[in-house]
Amino acid sequence: MLYYPRPLALLLEQLEKLPGVGPKSAQRLAFHILRCPAADAENLARAILSVQTQIKPCSRCGNFTDEEICDICTDTRREPGFLCVVAEPRELLAVENSGEFRGRYHVLGGLLNPIEGIGVDQLTVSQLVRRIEDEHVKEVVLALSATVEGETTANYLVNVLKSRDVRITQLARGLPFGGDLDYADQMTIAGAFRGRREL
Amino acid sequence: MLYYPRPLALLLEQLEKLPGVGPKSAQRLAFHILRCPAADAENLARAILSVQTQIKPCSRCGNFTDEEICDICTDTRREPGFLCVVAEPRELLAVENSGEFRGRYHVLGGLLNPIEGIGVDQLTVSQLVRRIEDEHVKEVVLALSATVEGETTANYLVNVLKSRDVRITQLARGLPFGGDLDYADQMTIAGAFRGRREL
Repeated sequence: MLYYPRPLALLLEQLEKLPGVGPKSAQRLAFHILRCPAADAENLARAILSVQTQIKPCSRCGNFTDEEICDICTDTRREPGFLCVVAEPRELLAVENSGEFRGRYHVLGGLLNPIEGIGVDQLTVSQLVRRIEDEHVKEVVLALSATVEGETTANYLVNVLKSRDVRITQLARGLPFGGDLDYADQMTIAGAFRGRREL
Repeated sequence: MLYYPRPLALLLEQLEKLPGVGPKSAQRLAFHILRCPAADAENLARAILSVQTQIKPCSRCGNFTDEEICDICTDTRREPGFLCVVAEPRELLAVENSGEFRGRYHVLGGLLNPIEGIGVDQLTVSQLVRRIEDEHVKEVVLALSATVEGETTANYLVNVLKSRDVRITQLARGLPFGGDLDYADQMTIAGAFRGRREL
């Protein structure tokens, strides 16, 4: 049992619960917090509490928001009829921050996963179908992980949506940016081959 | 400018001020905090504030403490007459947690560094001299960094204390635990040679 004054021990214990924070980095963070200006510590503590109490899902798309409808859904400059489907709000932020997509989003709330008991009812599929009608959606881009669960979910959505007058696309498979061919796995190379483009 | 809902953006901003936390790990931490149980977020926020308001220097040795005199100074089982001198309280904790030393400590508050304007007056040298008399100290172990500043400070303390009836020692120089001789620098190897021991 290591020796630390009690308030420091309590802080270390809390910091070590964070992902990717081991004993060494918890100590580094704790010593920093101990010595930083009081205003910085207060701002950090307040931000931690605010994010929990203020952030909730957008009632239309499921994005993180501190309002009823998120900024993206209410932004009239977004391209209408263009919907990007993601599993989780954090993936929405990743797509949004790629700067490539200017339509709106739909958060499924997960991926189909029979082993973990995640079925169609746990996902916002019926809301998606309703939005496609209500918002006159022309193209749905499936931005799902390139995993078994992602592919299963994509196949299911294609089946549900194929009878409707909507284009369904999915993100390209290929070498990641900066990816070394030497280190790419077979599936990635096979996907990149199938998706090869004319130059 | 990346897009994030405002409470999340504020939290990311605060997290990125922490040492060793870049945009990617700030995001990972923020998403964790966003989804963790409310009690965990509250405990973390409270621990951050407590460490700032409750921790202060021990009025005797300078250790971090939430009381007037720290646990180590008041612990009657500690070996009397045996004082370990460190630059900073975090180094005190590092020595203490090595489990090797069972005496008491004295925190200098830094190392002599003319370039950064840290002179004798900024360090708790007069308090150290007084403690050596008051506490009938027999041995002072200098546990200072093996740097120019550490050596300078050690030399200064030897000069100040040599007229007194006290043994002055310093931590051994040598190969670190697990250290590969191939990767050790000249100074480390030279120090380890000078300090070689009979087997």
